[in-house]
Amino acid sequence: MTILAYGASAADQPLSRMSITRRAPGPHDVQIQIVYCGICHSDLHQVRSEWAGTLYPCVPGHEIVGRIAAVGDHVGNHKVGDLVGVGCIVDSCQHCAECDEGLENYCDGMICTYNAPTADVPGHTLGGYSQQIVVHERYVLKITHPEEQLAAVAPLLCAGITTWSPLRHWGAGPGKKVGIVGIGGLGHMGVKLAHAMGAHVVAFTTSDSKRADAHALGADEVVISRNPDEMAAHAKSFDFILNTVAAPHDLDAFLSLLKRDGTMALVGAPATPHPSPNVFSLILRRRSLAGSMIGGIPETQEMLDFCAEHGITSDIEMIRADEIEAAYARMLKGDVKYRFVMDIATMAA
Amino acid sequence: MTILAYGASAADQPLSRMSITRRAPGPHDVQIQIVYCGICHSDLHQVRSEWAGTLYPCVPGHEIVGRIAAVGDHVGNHKVGDLVGVGCIVDSCQHCAECDEGLENYCDGMICTYNAPTADVPGHTLGGYSQQIVVHERYVLKITHPEEQLAAVAPLLCAGITTWSPLRHWGAGPGKKVGIVGIGGLGHMGVKLAHAMGAHVVAFTTSDSKRADAHALGADEVVISRNPDEMAAHAKSFDFILNTVAAPHDLDAFLSLLKRDGTMALVGAPATPHPSPNVFSLILRRRSLAGSMIGGIPETQEMLDFCAEHGITSDIEMIRADEIEAAYARMLKGDVKYRFVMDIATMAA
Ligand SMILES: [Zn+2]
Ligand SMILES: [Zn+2]
Ligand SMILES: [Zn+2]
Ligand SMILES: [Zn+2]
Repeated sequence: MTILAYGASAADQPLSRMSITRRAPGPHDVQIQIVYCGICHSDLHQVRSEWAGTLYPCVPGHEIVGRIAAVGDHVGNHKVGDLVGVGCIVDSCQHCAECDEGLENYCDGMICTYNAPTADVPGHTLGGYSQQIVVHERYVLKITHPEEQLAAVAPLLCAGITTWSPLRHWGAGPGKKVGIVGIGGLGHMGVKLAHAMGAHVVAFTTSDSKRADAHALGADEVVISRNPDEMAAHAKSFDFILNTVAAPHDLDAFLSLLKRDGTMALVGAPATPHPSPNVFSLILRRRSLAGSMIGGIPETQEMLDFCAEHGITSDIEMIRADEIEAAYARMLKGDVKYRFVMDIATMAA
Repeated sequence: MTILAYGASAADQPLSRMSITRRAPGPHDVQIQIVYCGICHSDLHQVRSEWAGTLYPCVPGHEIVGRIAAVGDHVGNHKVGDLVGVGCIVDSCQHCAECDEGLENYCDGMICTYNAPTADVPGHTLGGYSQQIVVHERYVLKITHPEEQLAAVAPLLCAGITTWSPLRHWGAGPGKKVGIVGIGGLGHMGVKLAHAMGAHVVAFTTSDSKRADAHALGADEVVISRNPDEMAAHAKSFDFILNTVAAPHDLDAFLSLLKRDGTMALVGAPATPHPSPNVFSLILRRRSLAGSMIGGIPETQEMLDFCAEHGITSDIEMIRADEIEAAYARMLKGDVKYRFVMDIATMAA
């Protein structure tokens, strides 16, 4: 099956319309007509080969929502016409301890939605900036939000689960004071989710202009992290801090805000290292500096169901497929509230 | 009460015999005739003012064992003649959440055994390189080891609890694979304790000459951490790693050995920072880099009781009080198996 996609033929080439092929659905496959695809920072880094190892042609996109067009003979859990999503993972080994626990995101054999090895043409996976995708049923998520929210659901598949998973793992909820560092694509979801989980949420931002927005997203308090007095007022008080900032920065400034046994989890990886954290920041109150990567398939479904129940979606700006380069340029300046979503229907125009 | 002690009058002065005073025991105080005191690396750093802020005269020593000489009227839990120990903590606020949970080591008002503020002359605490000490009953530990082991019990009060607390907190025990990095004063206790807890213990050392010794201490396996092949054989396999090395070193080499959700806890603080850990080391398997500092009073008692029951003591070399400078010099070269202990009786000679 040949379909249209948006991708790049080389690291120094802009994204443009191209034709790609998808495999015919196997017995356990689901074929999805993609309606919207969210635009993640990873897409930009990967398509420009900024992390090295990018295979071309490269079609990014791992915040995919759409409608099922066909299912294989053995698919029991999904049917034609269903609204579904696909996130960052389209395959894994399916038999290791991580897969057995539903933490496919930590499986050594995890296959990412784009730029990962596959038997399909052209030998590596191609993502959601495309009209259709064919995915093993295990990695297909059900969407129960109202259909008119579908575009704003797309970013939940990466930004949503990437913040949901650590918030749940480290126990965000009633009685807990939770910090969210950085109010961007990830951080704005972190604030919404932590608030809905019942935690007392403090948003950290470097920009005073985001103060009102952060409150509107659900933050109980907003701290301008450049202001030492505002920071000091929260010393030793947090149960958990979710740090979404990928740019290198002073981790000690946030570690010192954790109470005893508190954890700060990083979900962004900087291109150059953070300044080395002070060991005393960890030792003095038995604090932890941790990391977290996306989330597993069952917890992604749990997150989607929770969001549908609580009316949570991403704040988005819709773009046409041919606006992707302009969207990347704005994203690099932090000029988006808070996620671009591509209307896949515009690809055929 | 005037007694003899060994201490320094200034950062650039050698330790020498001096007279100090101890307060008369108050209603809740225990007066202890010190028999032995272990020699900790902290003693050396503090007495030389290498961490800044050292107050003089400085009498180090926080691995104290001895016999009770007198008790205050309200002391219920200790009696004259008992064998007891005092570790790194001689007071705390006694009413915060940390104190209430028996984690006085994380109390903001913790008073260290030496170089901390006190109402006693000379205004700061003086440690265990001395004939007697007077301590609030709460911070006095019972020793149930046979009396002939008393000298080898002394290092349990710092080296023992500093390794015991994180091993217990992060669940070392049967079915768990635990690494101990560095086979010195702390590390040799870590190996003994983790082994006695029932964990599968892997000792990491840079020196091939310590291989047989590490096995003798209780290590099931020994890895020369300079050897990449030996390290690679343990990739992604540890539940917990206790890192006792204070010298700056590559943390990623050890973080990469943790399985999913594994933690490496640092108990040594380097004078200059470790190279900044790679964020991917944390993110890829939801790993944690943590810190731990000494331990609380109840868990110190638990550790001492466990050690008495399992016949565990420190490996020590006994010194006379006037050999302290030579002992420090050897300690700096790592030339001690594995802890020096001062025979306090030699002080009066
Ligand atoms: Zn993403
Ligand atoms: Zn797997
Ligand atoms: Zn010590
Ligand atoms: Zn306290």
